[in-house]
Amino acid sequence: MNPSITAVQGIAAGHYTDRRRPTGCSVVLARGGAVGGVDVRGAAPGTRETDLLAPGNLVETVHAVLLAGGSAWGLDAAGGVMRWLEERGIGLPVGSAPGQIVPIVPAAVLFDLHLGDARIRPDADAGYAACEAASAAAVEQGNVGAGAGATLGKMFGMAHAMKSGIGSAALECDGIRVGALVAVNALGDVIDPATALPLAGARRADDPRRLRDSAAAVLTGERAQSMLAGRNTTIGVIATDAPLTKPQAQRLAGAGHDGLARAIRPVHTMSDGDTLFALSTGLAKPLDFNVLCVMAAAAVQRACVNAVRAASGLRLGEEWWPGMGDLDEPAALP
Amino acid sequence: MNPSITAVQGIAAGHYTDRRRPTGCSVVLARGGAVGGVDVRGAAPGTRETDLLAPGNLVETVHAVLLAGGSAWGLDAAGGVMRWLEERGIGLPVGSAPGQIVPIVPAAVLFDLHLGDARIRPDADAGYAACEAASAAAVEQGNVGAGAGATLGKMFGMAHAMKSGIGSAALECDGIRVGALVAVNALGDVIDPATALPLAGARRADDPRRLRDSAAAVLTGERAQSMLAGRNTTIGVIATDAPLTKPQAQRLAGAGHDGLARAIRPVHTMSDGDTLFALSTGLAKPLDFNVLCVMAAAAVQRACVNAVRAASGLRLGEEWWPGMGDLDEPAALP
Repeated sequence: MNPSITAVQGIAAGHYTDRRRPTGCSVVLARGGAVGGVDVRGAAPGTRETDLLAPGNLVETVHAVLLAGGSAWGLDAAGGVMRWLEERGIGLPVGSAPGQIVPIVPAAVLFDLHLGDARIRPDADAGYAACEAASAAAVEQGNVGAGAGATLGKMFGMAHAMKSGIGSAALECDGIRVGALVAVNALGDVIDPATALPLAGARRADDPRRLRDSAAAVLTGERAQSMLAGRNTTIGVIATDAPLTKPQAQRLAGAGHDGLARAIRPVHTMSDGDTLFALSTGLAKPLDFNVLCVMAAAAVQRACVNAVRAASGLRLGEEWWPGMGDLDEPAALP
Repeated sequence: MNPSITAVQGIAAGHYTDRRRPTGCSVVLARGGAVGGVDVRGAAPGTRETDLLAPGNLVETVHAVLLAGGSAWGLDAAGGVMRWLEERGIGLPVGSAPGQIVPIVPAAVLFDLHLGDARIRPDADAGYAACEAASAAAVEQGNVGAGAGATLGKMFGMAHAMKSGIGSAALECDGIRVGALVAVNALGDVIDPATALPLAGARRADDPRRLRDSAAAVLTGERAQSMLAGRNTTIGVIATDAPLTKPQAQRLAGAGHDGLARAIRPVHTMSDGDTLFALSTGLAKPLDFNVLCVMAAAAVQRACVNAVRAASGLRLGEEWWPGMGDLDEPAALP
């Protein structure tokens, strides 16, 4: 099985990666429409079109979700996704005259403005390009799209951080699929599901090849840097082909946050804007909702692990953020 | 240090355990008042006085939190806590005439009506008795108070479940303490933080001494029982002596849910009413809020583990739910 979110029937995904500095955006397309939900659990979110996803509100159907770097500037990339969808006649019909459709494109952004020239940010053309690149093929992972400028392990300053990226995973039960695409730009560390110890994250001051275990360090009295508020945020999309109601889609997004809690430590901090969307294309048969929630949590957890496994190190001038693989290659480190 | 929630300055706690059937209630008292918050993350909650804790609402100060068995019937026990507080002149002043105080006592309940005579439920006298028993001594854990009738690992039916209980833990950083008291009545399993495998939970049909790993079993196609909706719910209180605003108290409760996500798998399901309160007595100095959130998540995670470690097996007629220790003693099992 395609081990990524595009394993889900009716879902396509694509990246735009900026060549000028490490930033970009990623789109998850549901051309046939999908019931949408969202759960914002971090304290510093950057979002667009999330209020319409509240269960009591009117619109049920979402046509795409955009994930972008560039902090709040990156929200403009959703306009390019809307344009791409409009050109294909995809959107909410709001009248019979030409042009009377409104594609519904919720979006969330992460902070990567500290990597290179902050004036370069994903814009509408970037969002359009991500749609052009979208397909149902297995999603590329690592330093691409919204993960191009993602870093993690920033509690003790950027000098001890590592490069992160975007990751994906998919599970199947009874022919029903649940997939996730997550750009991990966390203040905290990504945790090995087998050992509950960090796989990637803040490195030790006395040995840049070894991880510090941010949560454990804080609990034993190491002081975090407070200047990095806003330099973080993990954003993602969960998709399933099982049919869901709008309240269920919201709750599936919430279940995904349990996956984030298992994969990232600490998570949902004051400096993270952690936001997960959920999409249900309804192209497969129903499945027990508790099972779907277990699948969503697992897909998000695995996507986070895949994000750091796929990320490669980044050097910018004097600064250097190793990827996970670089920790095993001492020669690659300063 | 007292390894329980009463390590927090200004906090007392007590249990009432019914001798007629496995049920009871537990109270966390803040006689000097505490800034309160709540985060309800399960789909089947039973609560009282939680709406006033929304950050925009008027009341900031809470005098006690009640945790009870008995499902929604158990909410009446909060009335006994109010009476106990009123007799001591503790409450929100709402006028100068006698009797014009209103003690603020948010509450949450868990389902234990299937254990014995369901007509026996914690009532106002039970709540009053828990207050009478309250002190700043280390909190008793296991089959007491709101944990008396708690079970876990119910995804595949009560025949494969285990006995759970109430647990507590406390951490200290820079002289600031964060403690948690959690009654674990989860649909899912409690997870060993060192191995990410279940410590207690659903047992195998072919070997009642071995655990099934509910989430893993579901992902490999084992079907859960759906008749157990509402027979679950994990409820708890986080307390700190660091000063917090009301919005911070709400967010601290949210951070506690990351501890639940790490300690219980699956958690926050449609059949769980998982609810955590947070209390800040403000009797100590401030501490970086992200550090407090790391402490809250760790305290909740440890309290859940302590809940199952302290629980002892329960036999009711033909039914038998082993405690964690019973798994190591084959002779004790049928």
